[in-house]
Parts: sequence; C-alpha cells; structure tokens
Amino acid sequence: MLEDKEQKRTSLERLGEFGLIEHLTQNFELNHASSIKGIGDDAAVLDSTEYKTVLTTDLLVEGVHFDLSYMPLKHLGYKAVMVNLSDVYAMNAKATQITVSLAVSNRFPLEALEELYDGIALACKMYNVDLIGGDTTSSQKGMLISVTALGQVNEEQISYRNGARPNDLLVVSGDLGGAYMGLQVLEREKEVYKVNPNSQPDLSPYSYIVERQLKPEARKDIVELLAKLEVKPTSMIDISDGLSSEIMHLSKSSGVGCNLFEDKIPLDPTVISACEEFKMDSTLVALSGGEDYELLFTVKQEDYEKIKGNPNLTVIGYMTEANEGTHLVTRGNHKIPLTAQGWNSFSNSEEE
Amino acid sequence: MLEDKEQKRTSLERLGEFGLIEHLTQNFELNHASSIKGIGDDAAVLDSTEYKTVLTTDLLVEGVHFDLSYMPLKHLGYKAVMVNLSDVYAMNAKATQITVSLAVSNRFPLEALEELYDGIALACKMYNVDLIGGDTTSSQKGMLISVTALGQVNEEQISYRNGARPNDLLVVSGDLGGAYMGLQVLEREKEVYKVNPNSQPDLSPYSYIVERQLKPEARKDIVELLAKLEVKPTSMIDISDGLSSEIMHLSKSSGVGCNLFEDKIPLDPTVISACEEFKMDSTLVALSGGEDYELLFTVKQEDYEKIKGNPNLTVIGYMTEANEGTHLVTRGNHKIPLTAQGWNSFSNSEEE
Repeated sequence: MLEDKEQKRTSLERLGEFGLIEHLTQNFELNHASSIKGIGDDAAVLDSTEYKTVLTTDLLVEGVHFDLSYMPLKHLGYKAVMVNLSDVYAMNAKATQITVSLAVSNRFPLEALEELYDGIALACKMYNVDLIGGDTTSSQKGMLISVTALGQVNEEQISYRNGARPNDLLVVSGDLGGAYMGLQVLEREKEVYKVNPNSQPDLSPYSYIVERQLKPEARKDIVELLAKLEVKPTSMIDISDGLSSEIMHLSKSSGVGCNLFEDKIPLDPTVISACEEFKMDSTLVALSGGEDYELLFTVKQEDYEKIKGNPNLTVIGYMTEANEGTHLVTRGNHKIPLTAQGWNSFSNSEEE
Repeated sequence: MLEDKEQKRTSLERLGEFGLIEHLTQNFELNHASSIKGIGDDAAVLDSTEYKTVLTTDLLVEGVHFDLSYMPLKHLGYKAVMVNLSDVYAMNAKATQITVSLAVSNRFPLEALEELYDGIALACKMYNVDLIGGDTTSSQKGMLISVTALGQVNEEQISYRNGARPNDLLVVSGDLGGAYMGLQVLEREKEVYKVNPNSQPDLSPYSYIVERQLKPEARKDIVELLAKLEVKPTSMIDISDGLSSEIMHLSKSSGVGCNLFEDKIPLDPTVISACEEFKMDSTLVALSGGEDYELLFTVKQEDYEKIKGNPNLTVIGYMTEANEGTHLVTRGNHKIPLTAQGWNSFSNSEEE
C-alpha cells in the first residue's frame, strides 16, 4: 500500500534535540498579534488580554490512534492538529496557537519528521494558527504526538457542554460515520496487502470516506457560520467518539434528556453503500463510529429559522426533561435507550 | 530496591477513559480566579486579561527520562510538574495552571496511576497551580507523561533569554551537580540490586543528591525573592541540561560572550564527596550534569548590592562582548572555551 520509499535517511542523532526543533520549525511564522513569543525560550508568551483563552490537549499514540502502514505522515501531522482544533471550535472559540510535542523511536529518519511537520504546517496555514512551542524526544517504541491547542473567545460566546435546556433543538454539522467506514476500508486493504504485497487496491470509490479517516477537517467554518447567523449554541461538543457518546455527554452535563431521530441522522451515500458492502448498520456506525470531528450542538427553538435549510446543518432531535432519558427514535417509531447502542458496544473491537 | 508491592491491582480497562480521568482528578480543586473552567468540557477556559500568559510543555518518556526501577511513581508525578514549572519561573512568571496527559501500557494498574497523581496533586498544592486538563490513553510500551504549564506575568517583568548585555553579572540559584550525582548513586545501586536482590543499600549519606534527582524543586522562591529585592533579571533560563549548555543558550540568544569562574560554581559538600567517590571532576559534573532545575540569570552591575550575600544566589561570572567568546576561567586562571566542556561531551553516555 503506502510504502515508505526511504530514499533518504538522515539519522536524528546527528542533529541533536536543539538542532531538530530548529530544523523542523524554521519555516513556521507567527501570524497572531497574541503570539508575542513562540519557540526559542523557556516558554512561549501570549497576549490574551482582550479575550478569554480556551486550551485543550490530546495525545495520539502509534498502534492505538494511528497505523502508519496506511496513514501517511503528512496526513498524520495534519490530523493531529485537527483533533485538537476541533475541541477549540467546540467551545465556539477561534483557534489561535498550538504546541506540538513528539516522541519518536530511532526507526524514524529526519525525512519522516519533516513530512509530519509538513502536515502540521499545512494545518497551521489552512486554519491560521501559530505553532508556538513543543518538545521532541526519543521513545522506546513507536511515535507519540502530544498537541495542545489554544483559542480565543469572548466570555459570553463560550458554548459549554452544560447549557442545553429542554426543547432546545439538537443540531449536527456535516455527515456522520464516514471516518469509521474509511477505517474499515483501510483495514481491509491492509489485510489484502499482507497476503499479496503486489496488489494495487482501487480506493477511488471510497475516496470520500478514506479522506474522512486520513485527513479530517475541523469545523472552523461552522463556528464562523454560527457567528454570521447570530446563533449562539446553548451547548456544544465535538464528535470524536461517536454521536451516541457525545449526546450522552451533553445530556448528562446539562441535566436534560434527548430524543434523537434515526431518520434525521445525516449520512453520505458513500457511507451507506460501504455499510451495505461491509454488512454494517449505518445508524450504529453513525452512533458509535467516532472520529468524525463534526460539531454537535443545541440551539433554542427560536433560532430554528436562522439555521433551517443550511446544507451544513441538520436538526436531528431535541432535548427533553432529564427524567425522559436519552433515546433513539427509530424509523419504525420505536424508542431505544441510547446507552444500549453507545460507543461502549464497540469497545471489545477497539481495545487491545 | 524500590519494589512495587502490588498488593492491589485494578485493571484500567474496567474504568474506561472517562472514568479514569474523573477518578484520578476528582480531588483536584481550582484555586486561581483565572481558572474559569477546568477538566470536563472540550477545553479549559482561562482568564488572562490582566497579565500576559507564558506557556511551556515537556515530554517525559520511560526509559529515556526516568527509570521506574528506582523512581517512585509519586516522585515521578511531582518531578514531571517541577520540570515544567521551572520553565515558567525561568520567564520570571508566576505558575498558575497545568495540564497532564498520560500514555500507559496495560502493565500499570489503577493504583500505580493513583500514586502518580498523588505526586501531581502534591506539586499542585505546594506550588499553588491548578490542574485544568489533560488526556489519558494506552501506550504500546511503558509510560509517557506530557505536561503543559501556564503562568502569568506583567509584560515588563518577563525575562527572556536574549536580554543579557556585556558586563551584566551571571548569577545562579542554589547549587549544581547534585541531580547528576544522585543519578550515579541510583544507577550503581540498581546494578548491585540486579546481582543481589536482597541487598539493603544505605542511601542516607547520599540523601541530598538522591533527593535532587528524585524530587527536584522548581525555584518559585527565587522569582518571589527577585521581586522582593526589586531585581529584574536582564535574561534568565532554567538549568535542565547543565550549566555550560544554558550559559551558551543565554550568550547566543543575547549576542554576548561570558566568563564563568570555576571557583565560584556552587557545589554542595555531598556533591564534592560523591564526585571523589565516583572519580569524577566536580566542575565537569556541574557544567554538564543537568536536571538541577536551578535558575541561571543575568543582572545589571548596579543590582549587585541587592543580591550580594544572599545564600540562595551566587555570582559565578559576567557577560562580555560577543567576540570574546564563552569561557570557563579555571582555578589555575586558564581560559577554556565552554563548548569543549559542554553537555555534548556527555552525549555518548546519555544516548541509547
């Protein structure tokens, strides 16, 4: 599949820790006025005097969160940033800075890390965030990436998880299940490759879902759209673990219940056809698949007029009193408690 | 040596990721007004409207930065925080918040992580910092800790690395070489233990240097002392890699040279006696040993009266014009270029 050609290998030891950071980050620029000092001192210095600061951090571990046999390093760098920016946007904030720390075994040459940083640089450019710090070190095994992302927001614009109220509408951006089905395709091709390394898979019918897995985009545009529409979500979360899990987080934090309508869940046609091919239930995939990095939020009923008909947003349910519980209302009009179909049902297949 | 008794082992799988974070962080309180929202949403929320924010991050990897055969987990948690706070203090800032991310293999039971978090909690309490976020995940091998620390400072009080001027005095807090000699003692005892697991080492003669290695303290007190003395360092850095390396960082960043006097380098008597025992040169150990987490800074000549005689501070040299280079002035009054004795001379023994 995606073979590392390794035409050039520069040993990391030749550069040393300081040389490595300097080399990898030399083309990164600071574009935000709030980035007073970036890489090169004991700490970065930020000016957050006009806004509140949001801060989030995520750890990506090789063999747990990514598989380099089908994940190109440039995509990995890009995705590592996206995963964190998604959390910033889920606060209804503007992402402004990131730090990237890296632990790598001596199996990686400098050229591999350059590819990784190419992806990080592309993400910084596309999303207008400044790389302001980080750390690089060796690991005993594999690669580990720790990213921290910062953002800015006016206090009154922050969307916490706990602000949903009964009768608020439940809205999701984009469509769901794609990243999970992309992973299924990639895992299948990996197995084929093991048996026949000369096989040339045609992934073109799956390009949308494979891209959802390998190169997800955080929904900066949705935060900007909501600001333009003058809609402030009463609560918001990003979908990293699956719709069901995130609905339960919002419901629990806000002290409300929820009715989710199966027939409203947005699915791309590619997801539906892949689910048919893999004999999977598309609703279950959307509920439990994870890694979609869409935004899930609640809005007041009176904001419906502002969002209706927008192709990026789908109303998929509404919040209820807490004692009504969190339910999926099926196409056949049955109510199934969401716990039963939550991401936990996938845990056996995802754990080692 | 420090045997893990493992009287109780609770598998991490039983808790799941969310349960684990909740469990480990349940007793952490937010004490800073600037910590608006801590753990429990997509991101933490901070108020930095009155000060500038400094931010630093460090990655600690088992087998590279620490060895659990002699590093108790509580100490490791404490040290992981100290390493980062030290960078905040090196900006002349007040440390206020941290995030802690953790990757652990299934070899660690819940009780081990509780010990680690006990150390983190103690560090938070002693240094008055709030734990505001983090991530926990599994690793393929060993333990990895990623800490990000934040601090606050008035812009005019920030001490960057680049502010040293010729004739500024070079000052160091505390004493040097202890952490490195403590490591030598611990490594020796580990070898003894391998041969005879029933040996009962008497580490009491080495308690000072062993503690410097296992439970270092970041110099919050020095930042407070300097504020009280109304001394603003013209440049500052923390000593993590060794005096020589840090002097060269300050000199290079500031565009100046430096004369360091060998006979002024502060050494604890325990370090001197351990160096004799291990047949090591104490000056070389101080220059290249690392992990002392003392503060190295420069002050204007006119501030000498304010700092002289303070038992926490030692003037060890002065800055020169850049073209004079960075030198060690030996006891015999020879001038040796600092590059020659820098931490690079240790690199063979420290790398894998």
